[in-house]
Amino acid sequence: MIQLADARRIIAAAEKKAAEIGQPMNIAVADAGGNLIAHVRMDNAWLGSVDISIKKAWTSRAFDIATKDLADHSQSGNQFFGIHASNDGKVMIFAGGIPLKQDGKVVGAIGVSGGSGAQDHAVAEAGAAAL
Amino acid sequence: MIQLADARRIIAAAEKKAAEIGQPMNIAVADAGGNLIAHVRMDNAWLGSVDISIKKAWTSRAFDIATKDLADHSQSGNQFFGIHASNDGKVMIFAGGIPLKQDGKVVGAIGVSGGSGAQDHAVAEAGAAAL
Amino acid sequence: MIQLADARRIIAAAEKKAAEIGQPMNIAVADAGGNLIAHVRMDNAWLGSVDISIKKAWTSRAFDIATKDLADHSQSGNQFFGIHASNDGKVMIFAGGIPLKQDGKVVGAIGVSGGSGAQDHAVAEAGAAAL
Amino acid sequence: MIQLADARRIIAAAEKKAAEIGQPMNIAVADAGGNLIAHVRMDNAWLGSVDISIKKAWTSRAFDIATKDLADHSQSGNQFFGIHASNDGKVMIFAGGIPLKQDGKVVGAIGVSGGSGAQDHAVAEAGAAAL
Repeated sequence: MIQLADARRIIAAAEKKAAEIGQPMNIAVADAGGNLIAHVRMDNAWLGSVDISIKKAWTSRAFDIATKDLADHSQSGNQFFGIHASNDGKVMIFAGGIPLKQDGKVVGAIGVSGGSGAQDHAVAEAGAAAL
Repeated sequence: MIQLADARRIIAAAEKKAAEIGQPMNIAVADAGGNLIAHVRMDNAWLGSVDISIKKAWTSRAFDIATKDLADHSQSGNQFFGIHASNDGKVMIFAGGIPLKQDGKVVGAIGVSGGSGAQDHAVAEAGAAAL
Repeated sequence: MIQLADARRIIAAAEKKAAEIGQPMNIAVADAGGNLIAHVRMDNAWLGSVDISIKKAWTSRAFDIATKDLADHSQSGNQFFGIHASNDGKVMIFAGGIPLKQDGKVVGAIGVSGGSGAQDHAVAEAGAAAL
Repeated sequence: MIQLADARRIIAAAEKKAAEIGQPMNIAVADAGGNLIAHVRMDNAWLGSVDISIKKAWTSRAFDIATKDLADHSQSGNQFFGIHASNDGKVMIFAGGIPLKQDGKVVGAIGVSGGSGAQDHAVAEAGAAAL
């Protein structure tokens, strides 16, 4: 089970990466129930990304998948097109969410929003590696 | 910080442009927090555009981007497809929203809705130029 | 039918009253369909009152009643208790909304929010008198 | 303007108080626009309080008032009864939210949820004192 101390370590690692690439981010960590443990908005990060970072974390745990991969399945013409209309708007279908695993089991997720899809995903990976 | 007097000057410039092109518009101005300062619906403008104009202003500030550009990123296959499901339906991904800048810093946004995408954007630009 | 020019005259009268009593307000005017025509947030007025002012105007037209009077009917134990759960949260049951009448007919409404209930109602009355 | 570093100092002070009284809490800090800067859920704190802490912070800034005081005004029979139906369900009318002030001006707010009303308010006060 992820504790607040774990979430903070994950966020610190993600922040470090975001600072390295020079892009302020919103970073959120959710637990195994998909519920938010902690969130930070780095100075000058997008206001609209508060919500998105939290929902990317939720989505990654809800479907045990990186939102980058869910994005592929959710484009027009693909098998999950329209999934973003479910769950009262909580499903984010673009890069930045990654499940957090311990011993091969999903125990939570990180969600990052504030830059390009590639940047968000890279920052989320840096955070996930710190678990 | 944008004051009500600034918002009114911006709206007046946008209205002038809308009158010139003969298309009644809804025009909204938001502050640096994305919160509405002022809104007008010109006579005979669409009722459904009240909400859209306010949300275009919010979106432009939330992501510090013209909604015209966000539209490109948000089409199926592109990196932000699905972003319109976030933020409880407040994200508008078509032209008409523009960030308002002072000394290179985003201090608010204007949102315009009532005509074609090109018309909305042109009216928003006229408004933004009046800050 | 109320035009934008009417709404602006109403708002100007309400602003003047708000300035006199020294309480910055949000002021909104809706038409006969309950749809927003114009809104202003005076400098330093509450952010949370943007929504409330717009909804007070809607409520006053929706039920052709001052929200001050609807408040009485909507307290615990009274006949309309619970009405604020209807209409997707748009029903405001405290003072500050007043129907706008022409020749005895309701043609729209004004909604004011930013001070005490008595202040909001007084400012709304000043606005309504300018139609 | 509150920075992330300020929000963290405020949260740390609130957590310390929560630990002292032995009640795990959700703690959120919002900026002058009411937008979330940071949130933590202490280990074993209520899941349902994630949302409440964030909304208490928003409410305190939206109306520049402690939610403890707004609670008084919002009971049946009082002047703001029904205000919780506004702003799409974001208005929290029970103790735990406090505006953050610098030089007498509201620059943001803290929201705390996880215990009794008195506990939430006490933890919020400890956090606010750290600005």
